[in-house]
Amino acid sequence: MRDMKGGMWIDRLDAAVARVQNPCLLGLDPHLDLLPGEFAVARDPRAARAERAGAVERFCLELLDVAAGRVAAVKPQSAFFEVLGADGVRAWENVVAAARARGLLVIGDVKRSDIASTAAAYAQAFLGGAPGLDPSHLCDAITVSPYLGPDSLAPFLTAGRETRTGIYVLVRTSNAGGGEYQRHGEPALCEKIAAAVAAWGEDFRGECGLAAVGAVVGATHPAELRRMRDLMPRTPLLLPGYGAQGATARDVAAAFSDPAHPWRGALVNSSRGIAFAWRAPEHASRSWKDAARAALDAMIADVRHALARP
Amino acid sequence: MRDMKGGMWIDRLDAAVARVQNPCLLGLDPHLDLLPGEFAVARDPRAARAERAGAVERFCLELLDVAAGRVAAVKPQSAFFEVLGADGVRAWENVVAAARARGLLVIGDVKRSDIASTAAAYAQAFLGGAPGLDPSHLCDAITVSPYLGPDSLAPFLTAGRETRTGIYVLVRTSNAGGGEYQRHGEPALCEKIAAAVAAWGEDFRGECGLAAVGAVVGATHPAELRRMRDLMPRTPLLLPGYGAQGATARDVAAAFSDPAHPWRGALVNSSRGIAFAWRAPEHASRSWKDAARAALDAMIADVRHALARP
Repeated sequence: MRDMKGGMWIDRLDAAVARVQNPCLLGLDPHLDLLPGEFAVARDPRAARAERAGAVERFCLELLDVAAGRVAAVKPQSAFFEVLGADGVRAWENVVAAARARGLLVIGDVKRSDIASTAAAYAQAFLGGAPGLDPSHLCDAITVSPYLGPDSLAPFLTAGRETRTGIYVLVRTSNAGGGEYQRHGEPALCEKIAAAVAAWGEDFRGECGLAAVGAVVGATHPAELRRMRDLMPRTPLLLPGYGAQGATARDVAAAFSDPAHPWRGALVNSSRGIAFAWRAPEHASRSWKDAARAALDAMIADVRHALARP
Repeated sequence: MRDMKGGMWIDRLDAAVARVQNPCLLGLDPHLDLLPGEFAVARDPRAARAERAGAVERFCLELLDVAAGRVAAVKPQSAFFEVLGADGVRAWENVVAAARARGLLVIGDVKRSDIASTAAAYAQAFLGGAPGLDPSHLCDAITVSPYLGPDSLAPFLTAGRETRTGIYVLVRTSNAGGGEYQRHGEPALCEKIAAAVAAWGEDFRGECGLAAVGAVVGATHPAELRRMRDLMPRTPLLLPGYGAQGATARDVAAAFSDPAHPWRGALVNSSRGIAFAWRAPEHASRSWKDAARAALDAMIADVRHALARP
């Protein structure tokens, strides 16, 4: 039901990162209010919803041009598609299929969670396993929220084993208020969850040596990032917060530690900082797409430089 | 953009509960594998996805016949629609619109959450506020997950004020492993979140006296439910766990405390126990729909009996 040639998601991802020689991840956040003028119909209240969703889709497909060959993966954010209802979800499916057709891995930023019987349905929706459904719009991995407990995450792990896909568990998020509940208790809850994520990954490892169970850890807390890496030594990390949210390439360096594979072990995400780079004064003379390309090239160079060991 | 006649969601809900004289909530979980035989095309891998979604929709529309006049609200579970992709989401929209057209309130069980800028898009998707989009498929309230912190919930509260809709924050869930992270720390994290939910509700109250910010508290932990009610005296609670998950009507009684309004303050949910009652031996002689009707009537009688004060 899914092309198994590439093996487990983490091995496919690791190979793709080695190919592009950088660990950058392009987030696809088609925020209606921020889209370039040529896609303004997406926010036009008089336009039909399908037409609005079509503009969102076209914008994302053009971002895939920017991503292809430069980065290993893209991370579409489901909220910005769901706001246009079923038409938006159709656009999501087309964008995911197009990304995979271009050789990009897809990390669906859906932050789903529920009790086990329902979580199993979410896993089927995004990771596959339901008979008869087109696998082209399934993700290689998705983000999931842990508040409901380990039994709520188990169906995603089970689905991942079957469909060779994976999850990134939200452990420590990049937003200002993220610590309010995540750092509650002693040890902090996020450290308890980090230990659990590391343990699940011990049983589920790729050939590259990385665990096949990932964690989201905001790059906006560098000291905590180091601690998280210690707690989850083989866990693939997804690091939001670079760029628009204020984290620097130096901040993310603590997530990487293998001198033989300098890009291995984490993905550094930027969404708005790339897609909406055209809004920044330094890109005023460029088209939106040239601005995105330039911003992504600059990010890649910046991250490569920070990770180059003497 | 939304009919304001009924006022704030919690007042609309309170009035509807008073009308039907019971606090029961019918969950719509169209689990493909459990649907009655006449809807079997929903799980047929050879059928077109749109046809499969159509069967899910028809099943839910028939469940609305069962709900209408008996209960105040229904709670569709998004995962079982999303498994059929854009076609499933189209079915979700039609089911929500049909429920509202029949005078039922809709509590969308979507358990969404994200950092604030993204949470705002989820709020628009389910609670409204985006210009030009059809409001008929929006929910009266949705469930949201708190792990990302208070700033991640703020956009839902803001949207709720604007569109007179609301949220139920997951505080203490009904699943066996729910306590693993929710009860972490001293005081337990869920108690800290309960206090926050109560505080947000102090600023945002309906005319009925209940807060306009709700909480999900599993009925499967009766002692904790009492404690949660103490921490959130005016918070509308959503109580999963009755029936299929093992909680009894007596277990939920601690959530109610107003002798003048015996049904006020909480919704008692049952999903599989009603929709799939036909699978139980005692309903073997009935059609699936008659079984659902009988099971819902029995639940209503059971809950009314447990809440009747001497």
